[in-house]
Amino acid sequence: MPTNKEKIVAMNQRFLLVRRPQGVPSPEDFELVDAPVPSASEGEFIVRNVFVSLDPAMRGWLDDTPSYMPPVPLGTAVRASAVGRVVESRHPDFPVGAWVSGLTAIEEYSRIGTGGFTRLIDVEAVPSPSNYLSVLGAVGLTAYFGVVDVLAPKPGQTLLVSGAAGAVGSLVGQIGKILGCRTIGIAGGSEKVQRLEERYGYDVAIDYRGKDRAALEAAIQAAAPNGVDCVFENVGGDILDAALSSLRDGATVALCGLISEYNSAEKIGARNIWQLIVHRATMRGFLVSDFLPRFGEGMQAMAAWLQDGRLRFDEHVDHGIENALPAFLRLFEGTNQGKMILQLSDADEATRVRG
Amino acid sequence: MPTNKEKIVAMNQRFLLVRRPQGVPSPEDFELVDAPVPSASEGEFIVRNVFVSLDPAMRGWLDDTPSYMPPVPLGTAVRASAVGRVVESRHPDFPVGAWVSGLTAIEEYSRIGTGGFTRLIDVEAVPSPSNYLSVLGAVGLTAYFGVVDVLAPKPGQTLLVSGAAGAVGSLVGQIGKILGCRTIGIAGGSEKVQRLEERYGYDVAIDYRGKDRAALEAAIQAAAPNGVDCVFENVGGDILDAALSSLRDGATVALCGLISEYNSAEKIGARNIWQLIVHRATMRGFLVSDFLPRFGEGMQAMAAWLQDGRLRFDEHVDHGIENALPAFLRLFEGTNQGKMILQLSDADEATRVRG
Repeated sequence: MPTNKEKIVAMNQRFLLVRRPQGVPSPEDFELVDAPVPSASEGEFIVRNVFVSLDPAMRGWLDDTPSYMPPVPLGTAVRASAVGRVVESRHPDFPVGAWVSGLTAIEEYSRIGTGGFTRLIDVEAVPSPSNYLSVLGAVGLTAYFGVVDVLAPKPGQTLLVSGAAGAVGSLVGQIGKILGCRTIGIAGGSEKVQRLEERYGYDVAIDYRGKDRAALEAAIQAAAPNGVDCVFENVGGDILDAALSSLRDGATVALCGLISEYNSAEKIGARNIWQLIVHRATMRGFLVSDFLPRFGEGMQAMAAWLQDGRLRFDEHVDHGIENALPAFLRLFEGTNQGKMILQLSDADEATRVRG
Repeated sequence: MPTNKEKIVAMNQRFLLVRRPQGVPSPEDFELVDAPVPSASEGEFIVRNVFVSLDPAMRGWLDDTPSYMPPVPLGTAVRASAVGRVVESRHPDFPVGAWVSGLTAIEEYSRIGTGGFTRLIDVEAVPSPSNYLSVLGAVGLTAYFGVVDVLAPKPGQTLLVSGAAGAVGSLVGQIGKILGCRTIGIAGGSEKVQRLEERYGYDVAIDYRGKDRAALEAAIQAAAPNGVDCVFENVGGDILDAALSSLRDGATVALCGLISEYNSAEKIGARNIWQLIVHRATMRGFLVSDFLPRFGEGMQAMAAWLQDGRLRFDEHVDHGIENALPAFLRLFEGTNQGKMILQLSDADEATRVRG
């Protein structure tokens, strides 16, 4: 048990949303504050967040427009998925020291009440507990259900992936290969393009930088002269329009994200939806949360492919809650290499304060 | 048999595309010419077109961009569906005097070769042979398969229809009611709105005129506070965006047409596709031709509903090939009331020249 003095000294740094961002989030939209470490009431427990996940979708949660999640209220810590350790518990299933994963916030300590989505994780089974925020977390499951369920490609079909070097996209391409697809990945910059081919096994990698929509369409057409059967869309804008221009009859577009427009007030959307009629194609939006009852299936499949050496994944870990904003903005600048994760505390230190 | 002199006198007026329209088609894009009446070789027959169908989709065929149909070549008659009578035949299945329907062109006489899509029709079964261009033609089948197959609504669900007073939309709403839906129709002008409610049985009719996107969204929301399950989209632009803002989780958008952008070079498409993700919704483009093997089923169902008095339909018939362009432009001005049809010759006169 910590001494009384240590308890008083321990503070909870929290990354609060204090203003709704217009366009690209700026430092003035947030405030880093010291708050007391919360205490658990009956049925609750306190988690020290070790790793928090930074995802493009979080940008939407900062707006006050209706979406699939309520907006982050002003004055509260920014909602995020996290992996951490229980440091105080009044819940029998979550003992002190246990590793958990769930939706908390960018803050050092979170109080998890009843109904909070948090589950125990087996950190012995993986190289790093952070993997539960990447390949074995929402990101991996998004790739898994997006390909296996939404696109359901047949062997030999062509799969086009935008944001292909990103956390989701890098897994999408590999799952596509496992299912027998020919894969075409789009990413920005020669370094990423090289990674698509050498590390994620894409059959063709296209650099969108320096290409207008017509040039992008030409590049896709060169890579898939008969058109693409499946599109896994993470980006939107010109890249989605070029993909829509490249559809084969009966194609499916899985709409996973539209990162290119999260920071702009004027939405471009998809100018080329006429092509959905021309090719009798389907565009389907999905959220990984819809597959919650099947998360077990998805994690088992991903874990098995990992074990067989058929899946490679990358994590880009930045350190310190004071770097929350620049780390988050990497997603929009494209300067992250792999799943963007912010480490808030040392894994071994995580239970020291109260453990 | 006609005399030799009559044969020489008979000319074939043809409405040729001579320049690709930029934006709204103009008289300079077309030329009305007199050509000799064609003759049939072995296996062919000549049809005198009595009614030709004028459809929004024909606008796309005038461009030289790739689509689901090859562009109409410059210097040829504008492709159109038509109903007419056989006036000369060297095909045993299509005797002189028979009524046929198929894809021909805006011209008085068409030569139908092997492989031409033309079928015999039973004109005794309908009030007018033109009905095979409306309720029992592609328009009716588009409404039928779009609702029954693409949307497949459950009883009690809400169906939103744009272009609801149009040839397809007016039938879509009625089929929706037959299947037990609550129907909301969008059209332009008070006269059309009245027709939606009084003639086509829409539960709610919304006039888009004088409404910006926000006002349109508010009107849809007032009509469907819990959102819409199904959208049958004929229009695009602001109207589609407002529909996308009004989706219920798991909604389906059947993309049938985008008439609002057929005459503009810059395509708006759908700015609001983010809502497809938020509501895990599906947008599916379709063409009635994909349902060709099931046309019999569709025509039987439509004919049965007609006979039961459960389906009302309207045709807007303009007369004379010299009016082809103004009649076609009605579709974009919204001044037609019902399926737009151009009558080229009198039904009874249709076989006189060669019959």
